[in-house]
Amino acid sequence: MPDYKAPLRDMRFLLHEVLNLDDHYQRLGLEEVNGELVDAMLEEAAKFAANELSPLNRTGDEEGCRLENGQVLTPKGFKEAYARYVEGGWPSMGGDPEYGGQGLPSSAGMPVSEMIGTANWAWNMYPGLSHGAVATIEEHGTDEQKATWLPKLTTGEWSGTMCLTEAHCGSDLGLLKTKAEPQSDGSYKLNGTKIFISAGDHDMTENIVHIVLARLPGAPEGTKGISLFIVPKVLVNEDGSPGERNGVECGSIEHKMGINGSATCVLNFDDATGWLIGPENKGLNCMFTFMNFARLGTAIQGIAHAELGFQGALEYARERLAMRSLSGPKNPDGPADPIIVHPDIRRMLLTAKSIAEGGRALVYYASQLGDIVQKSDDEQERKEADELMALLTPIAKAFLTEAGLEAASHGVQVFGGHGYIREWGMEQNLRDARISTIYEGTTGIQALDLLGRKVLMTQGAALRTWTKIIHKFCKEHEHNADLAEFLEPLAAVNNEWGEMTMAIGSKAMQNQDEVGAASVDYLMYSGYVTLGYFWARMAQVAWEKLENGEGDQDFYRHKLATARFYFKRILPRTAGHKGAIEGGLDCLMELDAEHFAF
Amino acid sequence: MPDYKAPLRDMRFLLHEVLNLDDHYQRLGLEEVNGELVDAMLEEAAKFAANELSPLNRTGDEEGCRLENGQVLTPKGFKEAYARYVEGGWPSMGGDPEYGGQGLPSSAGMPVSEMIGTANWAWNMYPGLSHGAVATIEEHGTDEQKATWLPKLTTGEWSGTMCLTEAHCGSDLGLLKTKAEPQSDGSYKLNGTKIFISAGDHDMTENIVHIVLARLPGAPEGTKGISLFIVPKVLVNEDGSPGERNGVECGSIEHKMGINGSATCVLNFDDATGWLIGPENKGLNCMFTFMNFARLGTAIQGIAHAELGFQGALEYARERLAMRSLSGPKNPDGPADPIIVHPDIRRMLLTAKSIAEGGRALVYYASQLGDIVQKSDDEQERKEADELMALLTPIAKAFLTEAGLEAASHGVQVFGGHGYIREWGMEQNLRDARISTIYEGTTGIQALDLLGRKVLMTQGAALRTWTKIIHKFCKEHEHNADLAEFLEPLAAVNNEWGEMTMAIGSKAMQNQDEVGAASVDYLMYSGYVTLGYFWARMAQVAWEKLENGEGDQDFYRHKLATARFYFKRILPRTAGHKGAIEGGLDCLMELDAEHFAF
Repeated sequence: MPDYKAPLRDMRFLLHEVLNLDDHYQRLGLEEVNGELVDAMLEEAAKFAANELSPLNRTGDEEGCRLENGQVLTPKGFKEAYARYVEGGWPSMGGDPEYGGQGLPSSAGMPVSEMIGTANWAWNMYPGLSHGAVATIEEHGTDEQKATWLPKLTTGEWSGTMCLTEAHCGSDLGLLKTKAEPQSDGSYKLNGTKIFISAGDHDMTENIVHIVLARLPGAPEGTKGISLFIVPKVLVNEDGSPGERNGVECGSIEHKMGINGSATCVLNFDDATGWLIGPENKGLNCMFTFMNFARLGTAIQGIAHAELGFQGALEYARERLAMRSLSGPKNPDGPADPIIVHPDIRRMLLTAKSIAEGGRALVYYASQLGDIVQKSDDEQERKEADELMALLTPIAKAFLTEAGLEAASHGVQVFGGHGYIREWGMEQNLRDARISTIYEGTTGIQALDLLGRKVLMTQGAALRTWTKIIHKFCKEHEHNADLAEFLEPLAAVNNEWGEMTMAIGSKAMQNQDEVGAASVDYLMYSGYVTLGYFWARMAQVAWEKLENGEGDQDFYRHKLATARFYFKRILPRTAGHKGAIEGGLDCLMELDAEHFAF
Repeated sequence: MPDYKAPLRDMRFLLHEVLNLDDHYQRLGLEEVNGELVDAMLEEAAKFAANELSPLNRTGDEEGCRLENGQVLTPKGFKEAYARYVEGGWPSMGGDPEYGGQGLPSSAGMPVSEMIGTANWAWNMYPGLSHGAVATIEEHGTDEQKATWLPKLTTGEWSGTMCLTEAHCGSDLGLLKTKAEPQSDGSYKLNGTKIFISAGDHDMTENIVHIVLARLPGAPEGTKGISLFIVPKVLVNEDGSPGERNGVECGSIEHKMGINGSATCVLNFDDATGWLIGPENKGLNCMFTFMNFARLGTAIQGIAHAELGFQGALEYARERLAMRSLSGPKNPDGPADPIIVHPDIRRMLLTAKSIAEGGRALVYYASQLGDIVQKSDDEQERKEADELMALLTPIAKAFLTEAGLEAASHGVQVFGGHGYIREWGMEQNLRDARISTIYEGTTGIQALDLLGRKVLMTQGAALRTWTKIIHKFCKEHEHNADLAEFLEPLAAVNNEWGEMTMAIGSKAMQNQDEVGAASVDYLMYSGYVTLGYFWARMAQVAWEKLENGEGDQDFYRHKLATARFYFKRILPRTAGHKGAIEGGLDCLMELDAEHFAF
């Protein structure tokens, strides 16, 4: 497994030079945070990721989790690393200051989450899921619930989970069966079985606070009869001390393709005591708070595996000697050239690099939108940011995880046969990546969310906002001939995106299934255009720095070269997706279900 | 793991209705084989695959191989299945009748290999590698060598390997270091270490015959100083009885991402006795016999994982209930619709199906070319078939394994979260598939072979032959308006393929690295066009049967529908690859190796 080194220079370039973090915080009137503070945090988080988490990535995969006497035991070192994570105050970064949090905006936490996740995604699943539980209680809990649960969740002393999936339903939560019976003391008894619960049990914290979807007696069928409950692993006494064990037990853990250090639990709720959170039957609406959060968190996973695959493959490509460059020896004194001289090796490296760096820009940008939604005083600005974030979230989640999977696979390929062997860690990176297009809403679900809900149901409002931002950027710099190589193709696909959306919209008026037929190709198309915008913005900044002779010129020259690669070799993929979209629905629906195979 | 059921109807459609096996054998004057015989073999092989091998696929992955006291032990049941394979006479199908083989042409063995490989690819690696050793000895061995080694290799009593790779060289065999010292008795002593030797040791046969690449004293450096040796695990006495153990030992076995039931060995040659096969220093040329064979064998792996992923996902998609069709409920009495109603699920299923069925056509066709090369009396016909096969082999190997990998990944995706869990077997199918784009020449190596050696170095001769065949087919049926939806897009990409080749060729005259920059996208483009040709041929046959009201009309209607899907939704990918090719070389080479990351 490659030792992860956080790409601090690239992160700073984005945060300070492209996304102007100081301005952003000042505009929002956030005095408690600034670029300097974020920089200091980056340094510390990079050390924590490299020293504590990266060394446990490979061993955690090999060892996996165990279930002993109803208790999940995490791989060696995971618990100790978690203790140091809590000591370092990392869990509380984004938490509400009223409950012991540092109240930092989400943009400040994003690079930290990225580093931690890239160093060890399986480990990251434990604190990662807690954030969702915290956000849900912060937004929907009563004051009493907040006072009971938030302080220790915020510090990381306790962890949290989200319990949604059941064996017969994942994407379609309307089918869920777990029941909650009201009790005379205002609590509920929950009965049912949840599966695929990440961090559902472990040995890192003294308590685990589950947020559980269940049905009240007589609740309407489907998604409109689901309520949300807080169900702790250990009940809490009046004085806050740990009380009795609650009726929640881990029945088994899954044997998975990857993220083996992360315990994926079957949780049995057997007369478990819980408390309603938010209004009755509105559980799914309350969940959306968490889901959007988790989706952006999963988008990071795309960057993580692209970055880790890239770092490993780059090191190997510089050292491994094989064959001569077709244009003449580049290492004439050696027995062969390092494989980084070969154009196709570079194609794979640059694909991974351009996905990681472009994806990072998208996710950091989205986290600034999150700041605006949470912290702006201007209602109109909040509304716009919220709509834009709603549009960009499925793109970030699904496109970046699909692209990250491709990049992780290139990482394996650059290593040749060695990539397939466990000790090098590249195959683990691919196995770990494979879950990312599935959980927190599959690519298919995200694509329907994007094209159906976010684009067509709003008559394209949010999409117009976004394509206008791209258009405005292209217009603003159109006088600059040096940037034409980026702006012209970007403007072209940006226009085409709008036209294609209109075409799909009018076909969908005839048959709603046209949405499903176009959706995944549409999502991928949208992702390539969106990343194109961020690559153009990065190119523009790099160009300006080169013009002015500022800073590390090598950095900017190579940033510009990577942008060039993206526009010349990656963006043309839009043509393939456009063609597939135009292929339409009929050819998908023509086969009878019973005649797919003979 | 899905239980594999051989798609016999589809195989027969191809062999008899599309590729006219009886005519093909008659033209070659092969009296010992006909369609009926092949059909009977298919039935038996399907049973063997389903009953003996499919049940060991999942258990073999879980258990893996062990190395105990220098001896590899294969997973439970592997050895017994191999014994029944030998009993059934399967190993000898293609062997030389002079040494106990049945002398069947390669087209007769191809569907059998496909079934065995699809049922259990890891198991298939043991007999699969033997075929290569047999072919090498048949072609390059002396009569004495043939008499010594072929009889027991042909029956499967012994197995064979190919020992090429060393730790520092895989793609670039010119760097290999294993040494062979001539001895006074005409034998050689070999010393060195080989890695990644599939079936390098196991417990299935009493002897293993290694074909080893090594250097003679004073041999020229690089690829022109490599010779080929026969090195058995156990020496053979004059009377043919097993003699002393030779100096070949398995030092360790690799822990891999997949194909865990296949032992991937480090083999230490320590004064191992061997015999030169073929001329001195011409070992690599001799190896090409085997390599082409192995490459087509690996092409099957693309079909195998596409087919197995498709079979598993289809069954799941028909049964799993989730959400309602956007165009209205299709299962109104149930709690939700089966997911096969959703267009995006169908897109994934049909992608896998169209790759498996299209790939099968390509590989069966190539195996008929192999028959012509081996059996035709007409020198001109042999030469043409050989050239065409040389062109199609890298396409079949690299394109089908890349496409198979995609299809295997769709298989996981259709299962949602369950796809990531080991017990369902879909993730194993993906892990097993991942090696296929690496071994027997990576996709990058195949792409250079295609564009560099097979296309540009021949001034496009073989490509012209192939595009003319496609052109002729389009012309022949252009009067048929019902086929226009297939023939028009096929003719268009077929023309574009030629033009694009010319453009790359002229750029490559300026800089040879342009070949490497274009190669993989060019290979994928070539694959999509080539599969398009086979889909058009299948569509034409299906159309004719429907017109004439012959046979199972449902089968032909659905074959036509799948062809339609391929042309509408898959072939448009060529546009993305074309765009990437036009992106050219410069953007790949602009970055300095030391500045890929900061």
